[in-house]
Amino acid sequence: MEHNLSHTIALLARTSAALDALLRDLPEEWTLRDEGENTWTVFDVVGHLNHAERTDWMPRVKIMLQFGETRTFEPFDRWGQVRESEGKSLGQLLDEFARLRAENLSELRTLNLRPEDFERRGRHPSQGVVILRELLATWAAHDLTHLHQISRIMAHQYRGAVGPWSAYLGVMRCAGHSDP
Amino acid sequence: MEHNLSHTIALLARTSAALDALLRDLPEEWTLRDEGENTWTVFDVVGHLNHAERTDWMPRVKIMLQFGETRTFEPFDRWGQVRESEGKSLGQLLDEFARLRAENLSELRTLNLRPEDFERRGRHPSQGVVILRELLATWAAHDLTHLHQISRIMAHQYRGAVGPWSAYLGVMRCAGHSDP
Repeated sequence: MEHNLSHTIALLARTSAALDALLRDLPEEWTLRDEGENTWTVFDVVGHLNHAERTDWMPRVKIMLQFGETRTFEPFDRWGQVRESEGKSLGQLLDEFARLRAENLSELRTLNLRPEDFERRGRHPSQGVVILRELLATWAAHDLTHLHQISRIMAHQYRGAVGPWSAYLGVMRCAGHSDP
Repeated sequence: MEHNLSHTIALLARTSAALDALLRDLPEEWTLRDEGENTWTVFDVVGHLNHAERTDWMPRVKIMLQFGETRTFEPFDRWGQVRESEGKSLGQLLDEFARLRAENLSELRTLNLRPEDFERRGRHPSQGVVILRELLATWAAHDLTHLHQISRIMAHQYRGAVGPWSAYLGVMRCAGHSDP
């Protein structure tokens, strides 16, 4: 389907509660283990979602509205959560995610975007010209790619425990299709 | 990690609330669209989870405890949810999932399984001899494989809308690694 702001917001508004219900107070065997060298834990992923709320989505929306293609976005730091998450619990990261997401959605709604705004251009540091509606769709799809990753990281911890049923569990054969 | 009953239950106890938070009252563009011919919608997946609660996990646990390898499990019907879900809303399916899961976990806890029980054998109709601890680990991993699938089905709906950002979204390149 084409990008639709109300569908995007409907999803963005649910992710933090869904992650909270899934992850809060789970044993650390699920949340602090990764998939091997240079991969992320569930804790890392939630930190990454927070870092993106702070530095990616709404800052880029505002740059596009104000400067169009004339100002290139700051490159996104894919390890930017490491310092931000240091010393925090997963519960604290989930609290932060709920707060940051609610603030960002409130700001997005306040912009009261009109149909022509969705066609505004911006300049991505490696992808070149991008469109505001693509950025908004990506915000929602980014939640989904990390929900996909979280389910895979957790399943990985039981890859041996499931025995022959592994044959029926597609998630056990998912390699992620990208860097973390 | 090895199978651990308390870790398995911790996860099984959270999935229904997580799916509820993610999916209830979402626009049908997210929940009633599939990934193409012979694939499932989010609605189908939740129906499948309910069908498995009814016919797979606890019924098989009880067969293993009572009959060991001497009674082969009934084959699981991978399209068994179609009739069960007919005429229902996604909200009804989510209510059912919460109720069925709570009942099954209550029954599992009541069994008060001892360490030696986890080594009990059973006979799977196509995999042959299986072990009770593998069945329990699979119950949890099965939630995760379908959370993985749900995030992928939903992301698929925005595969065109995200434009060049598709390159950063691993979920867009996930083909599922198995039948639905």
